[in-house]
Amino acid sequence: MDNRHNILRLLRQVAEGSLPPEEALLQLKTAPFEDLGYAKVDLHRSVRQGAAEVIYGAGKTPEQIAGIAAAMGERGCQNVLITRMGPEAAELVAKTIPLDYHPIPRAAIAYPGERKALGRIVVATGGTSDMPVAEEAALTAEVLGNSVTRLYDVGVSGLHRLLANLNPLMSARCVVAVAGMEGALASVVGGLVDCPVIAVPTSVGYGASFGGLSALLAMLNSCASGCSVVNIDNGFGAGYLASMINQMEGIS
Amino acid sequence: MDNRHNILRLLRQVAEGSLPPEEALLQLKTAPFEDLGYAKVDLHRSVRQGAAEVIYGAGKTPEQIAGIAAAMGERGCQNVLITRMGPEAAELVAKTIPLDYHPIPRAAIAYPGERKALGRIVVATGGTSDMPVAEEAALTAEVLGNSVTRLYDVGVSGLHRLLANLNPLMSARCVVAVAGMEGALASVVGGLVDCPVIAVPTSVGYGASFGGLSALLAMLNSCASGCSVVNIDNGFGAGYLASMINQMEGIS
Amino acid sequence: MDNRHNILRLLRQVAEGSLPPEEALLQLKTAPFEDLGYAKVDLHRSVRQGAAEVIYGAGKTPEQIAGIAAAMGERGCQNVLITRMGPEAAELVAKTIPLDYHPIPRAAIAYPGERKALGRIVVATGGTSDMPVAEEAALTAEVLGNSVTRLYDVGVSGLHRLLANLNPLMSARCVVAVAGMEGALASVVGGLVDCPVIAVPTSVGYGASFGGLSALLAMLNSCASGCSVVNIDNGFGAGYLASMINQMEGIS
Amino acid sequence: MDNRHNILRLLRQVAEGSLPPEEALLQLKTAPFEDLGYAKVDLHRSVRQGAAEVIYGAGKTPEQIAGIAAAMGERGCQNVLITRMGPEAAELVAKTIPLDYHPIPRAAIAYPGERKALGRIVVATGGTSDMPVAEEAALTAEVLGNSVTRLYDVGVSGLHRLLANLNPLMSARCVVAVAGMEGALASVVGGLVDCPVIAVPTSVGYGASFGGLSALLAMLNSCASGCSVVNIDNGFGAGYLASMINQMEGIS
Amino acid sequence: MDNRHNILRLLRQVAEGSLPPEEALLQLKTAPFEDLGYAKVDLHRSVRQGAAEVIYGAGKTPEQIAGIAAAMGERGCQNVLITRMGPEAAELVAKTIPLDYHPIPRAAIAYPGERKALGRIVVATGGTSDMPVAEEAALTAEVLGNSVTRLYDVGVSGLHRLLANLNPLMSARCVVAVAGMEGALASVVGGLVDCPVIAVPTSVGYGASFGGLSALLAMLNSCASGCSVVNIDNGFGAGYLASMINQMEGIS
Amino acid sequence: MDNRHNILRLLRQVAEGSLPPEEALLQLKTAPFEDLGYAKVDLHRSVRQGAAEVIYGAGKTPEQIAGIAAAMGERGCQNVLITRMGPEAAELVAKTIPLDYHPIPRAAIAYPGERKALGRIVVATGGTSDMPVAEEAALTAEVLGNSVTRLYDVGVSGLHRLLANLNPLMSARCVVAVAGMEGALASVVGGLVDCPVIAVPTSVGYGASFGGLSALLAMLNSCASGCSVVNIDNGFGAGYLASMINQMEGIS
Amino acid sequence: MDNRHNILRLLRQVAEGSLPPEEALLQLKTAPFEDLGYAKVDLHRSVRQGAAEVIYGAGKTPEQIAGIAAAMGERGCQNVLITRMGPEAAELVAKTIPLDYHPIPRAAIAYPGERKALGRIVVATGGTSDMPVAEEAALTAEVLGNSVTRLYDVGVSGLHRLLANLNPLMSARCVVAVAGMEGALASVVGGLVDCPVIAVPTSVGYGASFGGLSALLAMLNSCASGCSVVNIDNGFGAGYLASMINQMEGIS
Amino acid sequence: MDNRHNILRLLRQVAEGSLPPEEALLQLKTAPFEDLGYAKVDLHRSVRQGAAEVIYGAGKTPEQIAGIAAAMGERGCQNVLITRMGPEAAELVAKTIPLDYHPIPRAAIAYPGERKALGRIVVATGGTSDMPVAEEAALTAEVLGNSVTRLYDVGVSGLHRLLANLNPLMSARCVVAVAGMEGALASVVGGLVDCPVIAVPTSVGYGASFGGLSALLAMLNSCASGCSVVNIDNGFGAGYLASMINQMEGIS
Repeated sequence: MDNRHNILRLLRQVAEGSLPPEEALLQLKTAPFEDLGYAKVDLHRSVRQGAAEVIYGAGKTPEQIAGIAAAMGERGCQNVLITRMGPEAAELVAKTIPLDYHPIPRAAIAYPGERKALGRIVVATGGTSDMPVAEEAALTAEVLGNSVTRLYDVGVSGLHRLLANLNPLMSARCVVAVAGMEGALASVVGGLVDCPVIAVPTSVGYGASFGGLSALLAMLNSCASGCSVVNIDNGFGAGYLASMINQMEGIS
Repeated sequence: MDNRHNILRLLRQVAEGSLPPEEALLQLKTAPFEDLGYAKVDLHRSVRQGAAEVIYGAGKTPEQIAGIAAAMGERGCQNVLITRMGPEAAELVAKTIPLDYHPIPRAAIAYPGERKALGRIVVATGGTSDMPVAEEAALTAEVLGNSVTRLYDVGVSGLHRLLANLNPLMSARCVVAVAGMEGALASVVGGLVDCPVIAVPTSVGYGASFGGLSALLAMLNSCASGCSVVNIDNGFGAGYLASMINQMEGIS
Repeated sequence: MDNRHNILRLLRQVAEGSLPPEEALLQLKTAPFEDLGYAKVDLHRSVRQGAAEVIYGAGKTPEQIAGIAAAMGERGCQNVLITRMGPEAAELVAKTIPLDYHPIPRAAIAYPGERKALGRIVVATGGTSDMPVAEEAALTAEVLGNSVTRLYDVGVSGLHRLLANLNPLMSARCVVAVAGMEGALASVVGGLVDCPVIAVPTSVGYGASFGGLSALLAMLNSCASGCSVVNIDNGFGAGYLASMINQMEGIS
Repeated sequence: MDNRHNILRLLRQVAEGSLPPEEALLQLKTAPFEDLGYAKVDLHRSVRQGAAEVIYGAGKTPEQIAGIAAAMGERGCQNVLITRMGPEAAELVAKTIPLDYHPIPRAAIAYPGERKALGRIVVATGGTSDMPVAEEAALTAEVLGNSVTRLYDVGVSGLHRLLANLNPLMSARCVVAVAGMEGALASVVGGLVDCPVIAVPTSVGYGASFGGLSALLAMLNSCASGCSVVNIDNGFGAGYLASMINQMEGIS
Repeated sequence: MDNRHNILRLLRQVAEGSLPPEEALLQLKTAPFEDLGYAKVDLHRSVRQGAAEVIYGAGKTPEQIAGIAAAMGERGCQNVLITRMGPEAAELVAKTIPLDYHPIPRAAIAYPGERKALGRIVVATGGTSDMPVAEEAALTAEVLGNSVTRLYDVGVSGLHRLLANLNPLMSARCVVAVAGMEGALASVVGGLVDCPVIAVPTSVGYGASFGGLSALLAMLNSCASGCSVVNIDNGFGAGYLASMINQMEGIS
Repeated sequence: MDNRHNILRLLRQVAEGSLPPEEALLQLKTAPFEDLGYAKVDLHRSVRQGAAEVIYGAGKTPEQIAGIAAAMGERGCQNVLITRMGPEAAELVAKTIPLDYHPIPRAAIAYPGERKALGRIVVATGGTSDMPVAEEAALTAEVLGNSVTRLYDVGVSGLHRLLANLNPLMSARCVVAVAGMEGALASVVGGLVDCPVIAVPTSVGYGASFGGLSALLAMLNSCASGCSVVNIDNGFGAGYLASMINQMEGIS
Repeated sequence: MDNRHNILRLLRQVAEGSLPPEEALLQLKTAPFEDLGYAKVDLHRSVRQGAAEVIYGAGKTPEQIAGIAAAMGERGCQNVLITRMGPEAAELVAKTIPLDYHPIPRAAIAYPGERKALGRIVVATGGTSDMPVAEEAALTAEVLGNSVTRLYDVGVSGLHRLLANLNPLMSARCVVAVAGMEGALASVVGGLVDCPVIAVPTSVGYGASFGGLSALLAMLNSCASGCSVVNIDNGFGAGYLASMINQMEGIS
Repeated sequence: MDNRHNILRLLRQVAEGSLPPEEALLQLKTAPFEDLGYAKVDLHRSVRQGAAEVIYGAGKTPEQIAGIAAAMGERGCQNVLITRMGPEAAELVAKTIPLDYHPIPRAAIAYPGERKALGRIVVATGGTSDMPVAEEAALTAEVLGNSVTRLYDVGVSGLHRLLANLNPLMSARCVVAVAGMEGALASVVGGLVDCPVIAVPTSVGYGASFGGLSALLAMLNSCASGCSVVNIDNGFGAGYLASMINQMEGIS
């Protein structure tokens, strides 16, 4: 029961006699989600957090995914993002609900509809192999209504490739820097731009990359200001946060 | 040479004959900083990144700190933030330049001047022991012109203390969540608010907290959307990023 | 030879002349288990520790599992729990002994019989993906004669889902909190209830969850009192301990 | 606002007109603790969780400790436990409030009063060096009203020392097993007794003990049922949980 | 050229004129092994180290294994041990050379011949799942001419199973203690016997066993004297060392 | 835009009026690579770094590999090295471009042509299983025009095998020491020779080798002077650096 | 109660009526040690394990050390080894009991008496800085009656220093190899000698030696047969085990 | 006995009868170093490895350092480098031998004499705090006769500072890149220059820099070719290797 206005409203209804207290307690407990047994679908989240629900597909069966998506579609949700879903699962889900599948980020948009393309987010990667994570970030941001520019394979070992793309970087409102191995891209980009940089370490690499740990530590230690880090391979989290930042309203 | 407009301007001057090419190259190499021998002071950074230089005090002698600050003061810089400086060093520095020292975050403001207090940043901590890091974040944000609300000791093991402070959280434009030990504060706050949350793991704790590693990992794994993480105890980085986000202009 | 009463009884029999000393030594060494070659089945454990033997299925062939279970069934054991057994192995075992298989926790009950449903244990999970571990805990507790309430998908990123289920939590005698990723569920539940909380980190997650290490560390560092932790994914251990606690007799 | 009965009571008062809704919200937010600025003292916790507040001394100044304790003493709290406080701090605190200091566990009891000695808790250690942690556990349990038996230096490398002390172990309602180095004590005790065993890894050891990590991992992997683990050196947590378990009421 | 006697002999031959110096150098460089291209087979090792060559099968093709074994068989070697070889590879190798394959330890004896059974080595395991590693140790020791007693599934969580087998332990000249999970077996055995104990951590376990790391650390920290540790799952190394110790001659 | 001479030349052309400034900026940004969408091929790298482009095959589809190689072949590149490519991918690529595939290092040479064999590089391995990494190093060095001597299976546990091969070691200009497990080869070789030694830890081993971490740490700690280390299994990096060192010109 | 002969003897006495059963149980529990409160001194250990008690000084006060030693001296123990004791503590202890202090290994011999010098143990170190650990091993072995040869500073980076000392190595019955940093000494020695090698990693080193972890891992991964490892800096454990091995009787 | 020419020469003398074989063996064993008891000084190393002995000061007493240096000075050695020696030790050593002490790298030159300044080595650092390690590298290289250019505080977060110093980088024969925190300097430099780059991670940083581990991993994962890595803070090793590479003779 995290919403102050709701508590206040409820208390008022009780005070006016229009709501018995036991009923108020019941509402406190059941209102904000629908219980499917295997999941509690958070239908009011778009109100509370300004974004539609996202379905994290990993560890869910295609039936569970379709069930959750359908519960949302029935309430009129559009552009429901489903992440970490393989092509076979997507094929199954697509039989029961409208679905737009993207194989590289292994993500899909259920009940696809019109979208805005606000502001300017740049998603940059160190190498070609970082693309799946970058595409998850980019797609997430696009589903949430942002304009996204992709700058792929601009890693620091060929610095001129990055410097040749200063234009979109310099005009971005938020940059998502996706890199594995030594993760230096975040530091270098962070030193160039004057907007928030969200660093996404990837598990790309071998040997002492230790599944992304090397890039993660490097990014956390970045000496550039304005950088922060999300979990290894967490393209979704970066895209979601980039959208939040990009769509910030000006201080009134 | 990271600034596209500068390159273009220089090239234009060369084309017009007002600048010989050798001179242009020289400018490319020497303009943006002053070399003190032990440090290259970045005087144009405020232009390039929208903020005054910050002096990271750790590993520098009081003489070096005073030297760098003086170089900036002479150019008219105000509110120069100095982080990670002990009280003895501060006493020495204060003999040569005007200095406002804050003992809890072990930080100082050189050449203190007027400041704005824009927007609404909340800095929250899990416990009393997280205060030094939180104060570094809060002071950084205040120096950079932001309005900061402090919510200290609202850790999740006494959830009612957090829930009783929903008002400032709900109206924040950016929240800095500072916590050691199990770092759950970031997840819980992230699930409550609809603005970006910057998580700062602290080295507070003992045993399996492993100097902040436990809180760091927990925060990276936060299942709440909109969270990102900075380095352990990096209050400055969080405050700087929070300022960037808080002061975002609206999309034109 | 760990049982004081047994030592004393044996010594008494020897003193009375009813047992020659060599024979007593032999009893000390052979009584409490049956040696199947590949395993030493502990048939007296139910006497000694107040619970039937449990068969840890991982790393055992279906034949070995069936052999151990049969040895116990022949002595009249009922409700023998078999954990970590795949469906194929279960199918083979079910051909020779009566077996009740549960696919989600990958566990089975051999020689199923009547069971009690004492007290009130709550098993809660952070997400849908934690269900296999939670079901292992719940099934274990049920086999051992406890009443179990399941609260699944009540993770802290949607705090209202947890707060809406305060009733069963508040009346529990013991709570098992199952969570992966950042493991904050244990801290939050531990701050709400006044009974022991057993935290089970799960290997659910990706990237910096490092196979459950992140949740494990977070739970160990929980600042809530009354929490303790078992091994990653160790649903059985949590269910067993919860049963012990739930069935504590009052202080006489 | 975690207490169901309180919510219900408040709602009823509002419904009866005896409490205006704005006032109810205010109560929800301010009742349960007193804000000292540097700490939010949880005065109702004894009601909510069945135990007095405990003051974690590490990272607090003697003044802060004395302030928090005094706030509690003024409300009539007795036997307030203060952990992780050095002898110098204790000396200072003792000047303003009545204090009973224990140097080995570096803990104190403020406002000492009468205590009960219920049930039977055993605190066992592997070696002499584990005593500080064990005494923190024992003192905590005693302050909370439990009868405690100490079995120190009964590590498994001299198994006969443990076996010679089976009597108190066999009659315990809960055992706290404190050990550093290889932490085998928890496994061996767990295999002997039929009550819950709380394992406390200590940072005692050298080399590959890695500050208690070795004992921690060993205890988490204990193959004995009924064991759970708290943080390294967390004697307080173990004593608190042992008290909870020892004082369990029988199932009605 | 590590053998002092060989150097001396060679130098003598040169001094006597029976060997030109260039030839001596050549012998120094080529004598002690045969170069198969992919491997340098150490045919004199039995002379130098008192044991036949052992072929580490992992990472070698069946053809390479057969080639190396054949090179040794042609020189009259017997009882050549081949470790870490799967059943398919064994089937292929057995087509060209006489081979005695043991599926549990995945090891084989090429050119099997008569063997001695000297002294008394005990190989003990904590659980049934440790058998593959234990059998590698036992087979290695048997191939090298030792008498081996197997004590399997005597882990410390059922201490009576271990205590019931004190007889063979007490009369052993060397004990190999094989255990995964918390590895406490080595400590307990080390506290009981007065002969060297070789601890072998196994990768058996799950969660925080981290592939044997937990058992490894526990064994290294064993507070029992006379223990030493070999690599995780290194049954061969333990068996080889146990043989060395068991066959020590008395001090003349 | 990392090449000082190019900047200067460009600026001169602008100064002479032969190049408009906008055009110069365009050249700065587009010249040095060709953008294939999924990759930015660095065609001028041979000029800038004295070596042809290398294609890192891991994580690229055969179509992408062939596309990049073809783009280079069309510009007249020869001996293009492709690393980390499986035999199936090689078969596909070989259908469209001339390809010389080496199955042990899983590498290929596209557009094979004449090569030099300059200087003297030795590639040594500790065991047979290190061959794939060693061959990657050797092939890389050969493609880059160096003469390579292979010394395989000369690990330190049979020191005479190493000492018998002192001749090539002593006359090498650079040694690549490839070893897994305890990685001692680098230290021993480093103590024998007076040329740079490049240590390559391999992931060969089991148990506490932790995927090459053990060898990596050992090599970093080598007490022999003149050693440096590349990433685990990074045969290519070692071969590339060895070539750089071997082909150093004398100080003029 | 770990001694089979003692159990049997006790049972016989009970059977003969010369010992009442309650008394027997009492003996089982109290005989083998003296309880000083802070420690349980194991006075029969020399009988049970063939060596006098050793006092581990770390974490004990000088008073406790002197108390334990005196308890042993009063029973006639001689050559009681005290490890990990600083010079100040030694000075205090020496005031009450006869003590022979060795500052380099920070160890002492209480009640020094005549000693044997049996067999041939070699203690070798990689560098000068490993001496404290090596001296702890050597002193331990000497106290236990062994002849010890010291070979210090023979690390593998100067291989000739090791090869020049082959004579004592070749005639040793057991070698203790003490080394920090990359720990290669154990592998190289293990490949040269045909007796057991006990490897002792030391915390000597810096950077990626990680307090001895690097040497520990290297030694565990040693490809030389006959090697085993004790804890980091555990000179005592190595000396104790070396003594056990050196004093093995021949197989009767 | 690692020098082929020496073996051959010795064998020849034996063959000619001018050297009895026993004497030859003796020479093999004693020639190349002087044994001071606490250290074996390697006086022929300059012959064998082309450089004077270096004294690693850490863990040695001033007396030992002076003793070793004096032994070398007596043989005519000049410019003997002593590393890791504090100012107090230096003061003591300077009383007995001529010494030139450098406080920043905590290193000294004993018996200072004339030096060459060959070739072009660049030592670059990311920040001011990396200077001690960088100076150790630079001083080592200078003592060994190389010309060194220092580029300090050119870290990648202010990329223009690095780009403004392309001239010395582009003309270097070898670059030593010294950086802590995220270690990106090595990658960026490695992508710019066409000579070998030796990366030195430093322990500078806090939080998740983990004492240099973060920089170490980042440097090992550098995607730039031509990079290799030495141990954390190992300025000496980097300077020594840089000297070897810089002074390579051209291929004859």
